[in-house]
Amino acid sequence: MRRRIHVGVLVLAIAGAVAAEPPKTMGELLAVSAPDDWRTPDPADTLYLELATGRVIIELAPRYAPRHIANIRTLAREGHYDGLAITRVQDNFVVQWGDPDKPVGTAARTLPAEFTQPVDPSAPFSPLASVDGYAPQVGFADGMPAARDAMGRIGWLAHCYGTLGVGRDNDADSGNGAELYVVIGHAPRQLDRNVTVAGRVLHGIELLAALPRGTGPMGFHEPPAAATRIERVRLAADTPAAERTQIEVLRTDTPLFAQLVELRRNRADEWYKVPAGYIDLCSVPLPVRVSAPSLSGPD
Amino acid sequence: MRRRIHVGVLVLAIAGAVAAEPPKTMGELLAVSAPDDWRTPDPADTLYLELATGRVIIELAPRYAPRHIANIRTLAREGHYDGLAITRVQDNFVVQWGDPDKPVGTAARTLPAEFTQPVDPSAPFSPLASVDGYAPQVGFADGMPAARDAMGRIGWLAHCYGTLGVGRDNDADSGNGAELYVVIGHAPRQLDRNVTVAGRVLHGIELLAALPRGTGPMGFHEPPAAATRIERVRLAADTPAAERTQIEVLRTDTPLFAQLVELRRNRADEWYKVPAGYIDLCSVPLPVRVSAPSLSGPD
Repeated sequence: MRRRIHVGVLVLAIAGAVAAEPPKTMGELLAVSAPDDWRTPDPADTLYLELATGRVIIELAPRYAPRHIANIRTLAREGHYDGLAITRVQDNFVVQWGDPDKPVGTAARTLPAEFTQPVDPSAPFSPLASVDGYAPQVGFADGMPAARDAMGRIGWLAHCYGTLGVGRDNDADSGNGAELYVVIGHAPRQLDRNVTVAGRVLHGIELLAALPRGTGPMGFHEPPAAATRIERVRLAADTPAAERTQIEVLRTDTPLFAQLVELRRNRADEWYKVPAGYIDLCSVPLPVRVSAPSLSGPD
Repeated sequence: MRRRIHVGVLVLAIAGAVAAEPPKTMGELLAVSAPDDWRTPDPADTLYLELATGRVIIELAPRYAPRHIANIRTLAREGHYDGLAITRVQDNFVVQWGDPDKPVGTAARTLPAEFTQPVDPSAPFSPLASVDGYAPQVGFADGMPAARDAMGRIGWLAHCYGTLGVGRDNDADSGNGAELYVVIGHAPRQLDRNVTVAGRVLHGIELLAALPRGTGPMGFHEPPAAATRIERVRLAADTPAAERTQIEVLRTDTPLFAQLVELRRNRADEWYKVPAGYIDLCSVPLPVRVSAPSLSGPD
């Protein structure tokens, strides 16, 4: 069996073997990672989107969209999204869900836009040493692809594959988190600073990305009956411990992560003949490792 | 019904209304396009990949991979791909098909790599005025996303969403076109100059991109029985006229296309609040318009 083009994007299972030579691939590097190279997302910032086909795990970004995240938490706790539909699946762009006409309970009906945020000097930011056409600086903040203005005083999260954004009307302040979308195509960076970014999918995005495309304009399902039902959306924090998924994400503020970026900027395994010498923000892998839900996990 | 985030990538049906004001959106611009702004791909360079769910239309790029395209034409004519399987569907990366163990008939078993090509000074190249991290110059050649070296003497096609590439083993010269892949995720530009690019999907990519992901390593289907069957692969030129799809692609060497790029670099419709001021190569839309197969079309 010949080898084929091969690039692992998420490494979910890591070979145990520790190489004696310096790691040449992501897999080899992750095999020598330490427990401290990984982080466990806060259950209060972890959203489970439950479909009939499985669980999509989303990490929320409260530092970048505090009001919207508070609203999304309320909507999830009050069962707002349960039974709603994924109404839109537009190829190479987004999936989107929600019902703008459904009452939002105790959540806010509209919120001021949180397209960008003043940067707290104490907030960690791991710069990526890559020129980026869409922003003066790019890198990783709170484990997510992020950007900053030239002075480093204003920050925002970037639209990459898996980014979770807040749908809105033409009015910048018309979003509230009741309608959400996830990027399932080439990074639509033109949306940066035009939408409140609420987080990113950590696991299970293929359950969204492989959905049948909507046949109406902009990928909306016509008839709407073709839309996929959302069984339930809950915070991990509101989910019984036994039903939580144990998940860890590679930290982006470590020497190991910096080494990973360089390994991906210039691939050294024998399949590659010409190293790129460059990596764009949305091509940097953010590995995740997952265990099955524990039956008696710690709270 | 509120508007939602909205960006049409392919415009398949164009509203007939002609705006009195300068076009602000791609749809408005295409509505004022002239017949000469469009081109009809050569049937000898148009491949129909027939699945049970429909037809995927691929345009081949003979200028960039002449030997491989000749081989792919031979393989298609001899029915090599018929009944084979889409063996790999890796989320945010590629779908891939073929059987490396099947005899290739009169086609070549291996071919010298065509990762790059000397640039013919007479070959058209429409530069994109965007800094690109992966190549000194980027733009469009033969209607496809392309790149050149700093001196403009060596060219290659870029890996964007929809790019068709030639699978190979570790040996650069081990590909022959019997195994092919299509990009279904964020542009994997690190593959540029490492793979022979054979063309790009013009229409029907959602039939590939929405396939269930393979559950094995690198997205290979395990068990292989889960792979999607390819009914048939034929050149449009070898297809009866009545069964051809009438397809046109927007030309990339026209003032109208240059105007489209600028409209997309800085979105002017009222939904956008902050124009990006930039567009990356793989975010430039390459619109296609399609008619149903004609019953008595010209040959």
